[in-house]
Amino acid sequence: MTAHADPSAAIVVIGDEVLSGRVNDINSLFLCRRLHDLGVAVRRVVVVPDEVALIARDVADCAAGYTHVITSGGVGPTHDDVTMQGVAAAFAMGMRRHPVAERAIRDFYGSDMAEAALRMADVPDGAELILSPEMRFPVVRVRNVWVFPGSPHLLRKKFDMVAGRFASTPYRTATLALNTGEPEIAPFLGDVQRRFPDVAIGSYPQEPGATVRLVITLKGKDPERVAACHRELAAGLGRWLAPEGTGGAA
Amino acid sequence: MTAHADPSAAIVVIGDEVLSGRVNDINSLFLCRRLHDLGVAVRRVVVVPDEVALIARDVADCAAGYTHVITSGGVGPTHDDVTMQGVAAAFAMGMRRHPVAERAIRDFYGSDMAEAALRMADVPDGAELILSPEMRFPVVRVRNVWVFPGSPHLLRKKFDMVAGRFASTPYRTATLALNTGEPEIAPFLGDVQRRFPDVAIGSYPQEPGATVRLVITLKGKDPERVAACHRELAAGLGRWLAPEGTGGAA
Repeated sequence: MTAHADPSAAIVVIGDEVLSGRVNDINSLFLCRRLHDLGVAVRRVVVVPDEVALIARDVADCAAGYTHVITSGGVGPTHDDVTMQGVAAAFAMGMRRHPVAERAIRDFYGSDMAEAALRMADVPDGAELILSPEMRFPVVRVRNVWVFPGSPHLLRKKFDMVAGRFASTPYRTATLALNTGEPEIAPFLGDVQRRFPDVAIGSYPQEPGATVRLVITLKGKDPERVAACHRELAAGLGRWLAPEGTGGAA
Repeated sequence: MTAHADPSAAIVVIGDEVLSGRVNDINSLFLCRRLHDLGVAVRRVVVVPDEVALIARDVADCAAGYTHVITSGGVGPTHDDVTMQGVAAAFAMGMRRHPVAERAIRDFYGSDMAEAALRMADVPDGAELILSPEMRFPVVRVRNVWVFPGSPHLLRKKFDMVAGRFASTPYRTATLALNTGEPEIAPFLGDVQRRFPDVAIGSYPQEPGATVRLVITLKGKDPERVAACHRELAAGLGRWLAPEGTGGAA
């Protein structure tokens, strides 16, 4: 509901196995949390099938609309791994076998390497490869698009390798735990939100059985403003404040 | 990688709390699984912020491209609940206070209802309300878009209420558990995939520590074709077959 300070990010998850519900995508949750902690606003997550044209469409759309794009999945050597082709198509690039990636793959597999392994060295011809001593394979970046593997443990390692490049002014957050329903406080909340357009106020009813009925969240980049907004909410909502009370900027 | 039989579906998750990683979206996983079990191909999941224009853009895009669209979240009475306005904007509809929804809300809250609760009775003017004796509030449908709440237990209840309307020819699936890396079998897999364009073959390396190295999945609507494809894969990959062996169509 509020203006977001730059930088922004979009996540493109590639995988039929996510869309069929066979695999629970834990990568986008990890990336949303880590990017939030780095002060980056994730504004879009999209899950698409293993199809070049569909990947290309969303990667192009996201690359034009957000500061950073991170893709997850579709980077192996089999027929259903088409993310590199999708990213190349998004930027109307060709593909090339990258000598640095080829060497890393040959070193890893050794003399009994199956030739198809080298398919993983084929990248968009505008790709930059980022090497690190801790990782066998380089991180692949094409303009503002970072191509990460679908394997959660590899994705985390690779993200940590380059996370410093995303760091921005951190968010200041705060919460209020309330024992009320939403309708009773909706007009007041809306009024405070209008006066604090630079602080995002969220209202989240808790599932039955939770210790409080409603959690109000605040998030912004200016600590003074978040604290001022939090004080105003706490004053106006005091009669419903749960014993858990307030957290964060109070 | 393969042609998909109709019907298709897209899921639009609305929520800043998902994009910031504060809340783990379990609704899209539930919907992907249930729709797959009903024979519906989920072809797209997208998570968007609590902003009318962004919701409208994705809802319009998905409504035009897929048989069914399901939205999750953003349907409460507070300022950050703007899904109904987003869906209305997607179809260039206005909003109306629906008398059936209003009555359900008044009955639920009784005499001490806060006026803001009635905001939940405001729906796009082309909305159809579907009532059921088990549910307090109706399910809201606008053309091919089903508007579900973000609360996981309510979403599940409401989905179950209308699930029969989505049912199609079920998928036949099968798996092979292998002890090999992908490069060794990639050319063979690609060859079989070309000869079975109506069976989606997936190849999924397992995380370190799993009992097998690689799982091959098959999925299609024609049981004979899935079984034939499975036989061919099992014959060609026999030397790598794990003790867990084959599942499904064998």
